[in-house]
Amino acid sequence: MVNRIRITAIISSLFLLAADAGYFAPQELGTAAALRDRALEGSEAYNLAASLTTEVGPRLAGSPGDWQAVRWAAMKFKELGFDRVWTEPVPIDAWARGEEMATIVAPFPQKLVVTALGLSEPTPEDGIEAEIAHFETLADLMEAPLGSLDGRIAFISNRMERTRDGSGYGPAVQARSRGAIEAAKRGAVALLIRSIGTDNHRVPHTGGMRYEDGAPRIPAAALANPDADLLVRQLGYDQPVVVRLKLETERIGLAVSANVIGEITGSEKPEEVIILGAHLDSWDLGTGAIDDGAGVGIAMAAAHLIGQLEERPKRTIRVVLFAAEEVGLVGARKYLEDHLGELRNHIIGAESDFGAGRIWRLSSGVSENAVPVMDAIASVLEPLGIERGGNEAGGGPDLTPLRGAGMAVAGLDQDGTLYFDLHHTPDDTMDKIDRKAMDQNAAAYAVFAYLAAQYDGRFD
Amino acid sequence: MVNRIRITAIISSLFLLAADAGYFAPQELGTAAALRDRALEGSEAYNLAASLTTEVGPRLAGSPGDWQAVRWAAMKFKELGFDRVWTEPVPIDAWARGEEMATIVAPFPQKLVVTALGLSEPTPEDGIEAEIAHFETLADLMEAPLGSLDGRIAFISNRMERTRDGSGYGPAVQARSRGAIEAAKRGAVALLIRSIGTDNHRVPHTGGMRYEDGAPRIPAAALANPDADLLVRQLGYDQPVVVRLKLETERIGLAVSANVIGEITGSEKPEEVIILGAHLDSWDLGTGAIDDGAGVGIAMAAAHLIGQLEERPKRTIRVVLFAAEEVGLVGARKYLEDHLGELRNHIIGAESDFGAGRIWRLSSGVSENAVPVMDAIASVLEPLGIERGGNEAGGGPDLTPLRGAGMAVAGLDQDGTLYFDLHHTPDDTMDKIDRKAMDQNAAAYAVFAYLAAQYDGRFD
Repeated sequence: MVNRIRITAIISSLFLLAADAGYFAPQELGTAAALRDRALEGSEAYNLAASLTTEVGPRLAGSPGDWQAVRWAAMKFKELGFDRVWTEPVPIDAWARGEEMATIVAPFPQKLVVTALGLSEPTPEDGIEAEIAHFETLADLMEAPLGSLDGRIAFISNRMERTRDGSGYGPAVQARSRGAIEAAKRGAVALLIRSIGTDNHRVPHTGGMRYEDGAPRIPAAALANPDADLLVRQLGYDQPVVVRLKLETERIGLAVSANVIGEITGSEKPEEVIILGAHLDSWDLGTGAIDDGAGVGIAMAAAHLIGQLEERPKRTIRVVLFAAEEVGLVGARKYLEDHLGELRNHIIGAESDFGAGRIWRLSSGVSENAVPVMDAIASVLEPLGIERGGNEAGGGPDLTPLRGAGMAVAGLDQDGTLYFDLHHTPDDTMDKIDRKAMDQNAAAYAVFAYLAAQYDGRFD
Repeated sequence: MVNRIRITAIISSLFLLAADAGYFAPQELGTAAALRDRALEGSEAYNLAASLTTEVGPRLAGSPGDWQAVRWAAMKFKELGFDRVWTEPVPIDAWARGEEMATIVAPFPQKLVVTALGLSEPTPEDGIEAEIAHFETLADLMEAPLGSLDGRIAFISNRMERTRDGSGYGPAVQARSRGAIEAAKRGAVALLIRSIGTDNHRVPHTGGMRYEDGAPRIPAAALANPDADLLVRQLGYDQPVVVRLKLETERIGLAVSANVIGEITGSEKPEEVIILGAHLDSWDLGTGAIDDGAGVGIAMAAAHLIGQLEERPKRTIRVVLFAAEEVGLVGARKYLEDHLGELRNHIIGAESDFGAGRIWRLSSGVSENAVPVMDAIASVLEPLGIERGGNEAGGGPDLTPLRGAGMAVAGLDQDGTLYFDLHHTPDDTMDKIDRKAMDQNAAAYAVFAYLAAQYDGRFD
């Protein structure tokens, strides 16, 4: 076995050297490796996330905390010596949460831990008291005839599956995003869902939802997983289950937020930018540590490491801290709008918005020609425990508009096994973040950004 | 090594056979083993805990939920065919929690997750706003001079250590039980502690506290662990940290609860009882699943298994579901008072009040003469993965008064590694309980109770 492994290693090395040789000078690869190793010795990533969650905390788009975060970010970019720092205003249709309460009234009265879904309408001031109509999935609910839920609270109890790559989220989250529309069409007066999350703690998971013209805008909320279990157990007694739900929410109207941008300016092609993204806003329940204080720290720290090199890289490294991701990629869309004239200068981007787990894979979304360049970058990431993935990366939520406009992307894929335990809950707090994992992330982003900035060709 | 292990095994077997032979008839050992195996095939333990937490839920001593639990228990004993079922009233000085709120006001405003300690006084209606005086331990606080905390909120941040046997609890819990007394003596206007718990979720741990004549009765509360971390981080900025605390609590006055008792009556010595204990009350934040719905289920299920044998055991198996454990062993003390005349008939007891983990050890608190009898019982428990422990068992909190009066006890020691993640929190819910572990517990209690009932001698 030993011999075989050794031979494979030698062949790999030869192959990687060959791949590298074509795209990067040895000195560039050496600088990339040095950036990587410096990050592992200790980057600013963890400190930045700690600072943001400690000094600002919750920062729902359009809230006072959000504006504090904008000020924080601009100040930090300056403190870290970025060459250019600016903000680009993003108008927000602000929403706020008030008190929220749910109780099982019958057959066995018990309080439930509940939270309104983001952007939900409030209940009437006295609340809603109605019998539960239980569906295991949104698909089951959609088989119920129109009118069959008249006067009921629809309850969808599907439980999200835990996976490393977060693939359990997509199927489960439909109940949250479309549930209120489909329940309302069938006559329901409110929607309750089991939290879209993999934990079993009494912390509910909020998150965005939608309404649709032609269906009443009914209030919608998520139960913490143990509370959803309790409701399911009470439904098992084959007696009518009645729940009282009260949600205070408010559409506040126009507020201003901002995309906050910091650059390490390129020495040869300053107008061409490598985008490192994260989003600055958070939901209101937690302190936005893993979503997305971690990403903010990683992106800023990676560019900061590059900024400490003796020479600036050829292209510009642009860190974009997007506004209002959680409420519908508002900042990301505004960024696209603001930069339509210079899209072709957006060479490639990557966003960190999947928590604080270690990166285990480099995927890409580049032209066929550029795949070997990404392979070459991957070879420098290998000592970080990062394997090379495929070429179907999406690039992260805030890069969706830019990706749609043709920008190449990289996916520095994090281990998300624990991410959905915390996602959108009060439990999204700094203690969930490991300093060493943050340094590994910063190392990978620094290597990627530096080499992408040095590479002479295009990725699209 | 193999040979040595084999020889040890043979010697052990011989020793155990020898030990068994002296105290129990082969048929008795066979019945005990059959009870054990039947329990593993499926006992009522899990179902009982599920029923209690689903149909009653929170049951703080003296609250309406507590009285519901008393009714539930009496009904369940009857449904399960116990020979005698009765209640013994326990007067309670009832206390209730209202709204509670804490916020860091400066330097960086953020909400904190907080809960009043059990029996705490309320704050004034407007709350208390004061600067934090931080101590890492109660011992550190006790070194502060009298008057040095004038007008401050004392904050003790010690973190409980995780262990299998729960030994981290004792040192840490002093901050909760005595903290308010010592802080008040030194002039503090309120006490905040880090939750006495091993988790890192945003669920605070309540629990009993004491006041003392001669020290002002200041309000006292616990922060969830992540919130204590946040407060510590803000204290690290070397600026004054100001917290606003509001606790609504109420002393309701006299309420009535009850010890609920069910018996499988002995066939030869019915007046002599083997006590299987658990407590029926819970704190108000969770549904009292692991503390102590699990114990209620285990004790009832074990006796129920014995009740299904063709013949009644020689002695009576008495399941006592104690009232008001959490608020100071009130039911346990009342039980002692009510049974002073028959204490000598309390042959031996064991209480299940350490969650729903598997039992890993049988310890005992018996006379030297009876130690080999416990060894013989342990031999039947061995296939359950239970080892024999020492002879220093305390027997569980509700047995403390009986133990003090001379009753022998057994300790069926559970794995408590995860217990203090959930203890006294909203997170103490049914989903934390594993059915198979409950069956293993019921098996062990059934074996212990049956053999203790069959043994002709005494344990004290």
